[in-house]
Amino acid sequence: MNSRMIDRRQLMTAALFLAVFFPCLRAHGADTLHSWNNGPTKIAVLQFVRDVTTEGGQYFVPPRGRIAVFSHDGTLCPEQPVPVELAFALDRIKALASTHPRWNTKEPFKSALSRNLKALAATGTRGMMELTAAAHSGMTTEEFETTVMNWLAKARNPKLNRPYTQCALLPMLELLDFLRSSGFKTYIVLRGDAGFLRPWAEKVYGVPPDQVIGSSVRTKFESRRGAPLLVRRPEFDLMEDGAGRPAAIYRAIGRRPIAAFGNSDADLEMLQWTAAGEGRHLALVVHHTNGGNEFAYDRKAMFGRLDKGLDMARKNGWRIADMTKDWNRFFTKTTK
Amino acid sequence: MNSRMIDRRQLMTAALFLAVFFPCLRAHGADTLHSWNNGPTKIAVLQFVRDVTTEGGQYFVPPRGRIAVFSHDGTLCPEQPVPVELAFALDRIKALASTHPRWNTKEPFKSALSRNLKALAATGTRGMMELTAAAHSGMTTEEFETTVMNWLAKARNPKLNRPYTQCALLPMLELLDFLRSSGFKTYIVLRGDAGFLRPWAEKVYGVPPDQVIGSSVRTKFESRRGAPLLVRRPEFDLMEDGAGRPAAIYRAIGRRPIAAFGNSDADLEMLQWTAAGEGRHLALVVHHTNGGNEFAYDRKAMFGRLDKGLDMARKNGWRIADMTKDWNRFFTKTTK
Repeated sequence: MNSRMIDRRQLMTAALFLAVFFPCLRAHGADTLHSWNNGPTKIAVLQFVRDVTTEGGQYFVPPRGRIAVFSHDGTLCPEQPVPVELAFALDRIKALASTHPRWNTKEPFKSALSRNLKALAATGTRGMMELTAAAHSGMTTEEFETTVMNWLAKARNPKLNRPYTQCALLPMLELLDFLRSSGFKTYIVLRGDAGFLRPWAEKVYGVPPDQVIGSSVRTKFESRRGAPLLVRRPEFDLMEDGAGRPAAIYRAIGRRPIAAFGNSDADLEMLQWTAAGEGRHLALVVHHTNGGNEFAYDRKAMFGRLDKGLDMARKNGWRIADMTKDWNRFFTKTTK
Repeated sequence: MNSRMIDRRQLMTAALFLAVFFPCLRAHGADTLHSWNNGPTKIAVLQFVRDVTTEGGQYFVPPRGRIAVFSHDGTLCPEQPVPVELAFALDRIKALASTHPRWNTKEPFKSALSRNLKALAATGTRGMMELTAAAHSGMTTEEFETTVMNWLAKARNPKLNRPYTQCALLPMLELLDFLRSSGFKTYIVLRGDAGFLRPWAEKVYGVPPDQVIGSSVRTKFESRRGAPLLVRRPEFDLMEDGAGRPAAIYRAIGRRPIAAFGNSDADLEMLQWTAAGEGRHLALVVHHTNGGNEFAYDRKAMFGRLDKGLDMARKNGWRIADMTKDWNRFFTKTTK
């Protein structure tokens, strides 16, 4: 046996090993959830993924059925002191105010301009829709995308002092990656305008624009200088919270997810619907318990109240990711 | 140099060749469009794909921007003598009629039951929506899926004498495959209920459920014997034809396609919007000119009228797939 033969055998063995075991290694995932402590929550996630990806196993789900939905604000990123989309709307209303003098005395604009969040919240769903419609319309779809990206390039979460694009919760990014590498299709669900998140969801979360499910600003087909385009109108098709979420998910993707991740009472029905499907499922609630690294709030929060959801999660045996107990890192290092 | 060394060199060379050139070979595609005659239409398709996939080229589009939308009825499959979804609705209304005695005298049900298509068409959009709402509701989303699949297992296109699942136009299937193998994400757009096509779009067209864009039957979140589920309501959110198509596509995927395929005046604005985007684009109209192999109709058709669209395609230099000139095969062999 000469040395060349050994080389070749080693080469072939290595190739065979990679070909056979690489999918398993990738799907194993214990090594990718670095920011999760080894505890019952992480183990439950790993067990679920192993169950639905083990071919020939009792709970195997073919890739086309591996649908995972993630709520956005509070689940994938902090929603305090205000959700990112509201921060954008507040800045945009301020920028537009000089050409809308009536806004100084008219709600919800008055409270938005004075940054009185409590009074703004009191204007309710109708007020928030009116605010979003004004902030997100009056331009083409392409112009809106540019406006959003320009704002994101400068805006920062005031408490975390980070660009919003670097506020994603690291353990959740790892979870998104792990699920995708295990053959899942991952979706983001938000109550706000999907058109606001879509331009940057892929870069930050690895989720392409058409896998972002949310409310819609209506558009109108127009022709400008002979070129057809879509203009965003100040009209809003609201995705309702609660029972509206399963309906919106069904409308967008036509299937019941097998994994759902939420953090507030608005996500309850989405979690219930997912948990009631056939076979294995995973319903997980992110519980904000860490005021030092992130924020601590639940039953009495203005944004992202988690009250019934906490009781229901405990009652139904859903998984709870307690940030303090289950996570050891919260964010990536900031980069320029 | 001994023979083992040659073996090894050959092995490495072959591996290198595959690694470097395999993506190009796959993307070349001239060999996959077997049912397309070598003529200006096929050449234009190949040229477009080459332009947007050539890295470093002037017209290169990264994979995330390679969005192709296909109208369904008449573009991917025949829509004569009636579109598949209408065939389903007619059968279903008939099956339900015994428990709805009023339908015998009430439009649009009366015309549906007597199969008077002209009178049915005269009930307009409102009539068709009412018909669909009645035929597609009153059950859970999972039950509806089963109902559709059971119907498809038996129903046949009466003129072609084929199961509807084997009525897909072969040249269009080749085109879908070719685009996907060139990094495109392919979507189907239909005016009807997306929930009707989604259960079988993947098997027939290779398009997953969430890449089917259409109208929606509204659903309601309910709990039955403790299990949350969605019940389809007799209410219909219509995706309008014409200018409604670009808006519906934007709503669903948040982007402007770079390739669009249609066959009727209902697709006009979708084609215009696509053709007006930046960079290279492909707007193609399927023209039904072959009454022997499929159907021949255009300016005066009841379903799938192509009148303005034909003029506009010629005026704007869009591509026209003339079935007789451009195609040499129409369907796959039928299988059990």
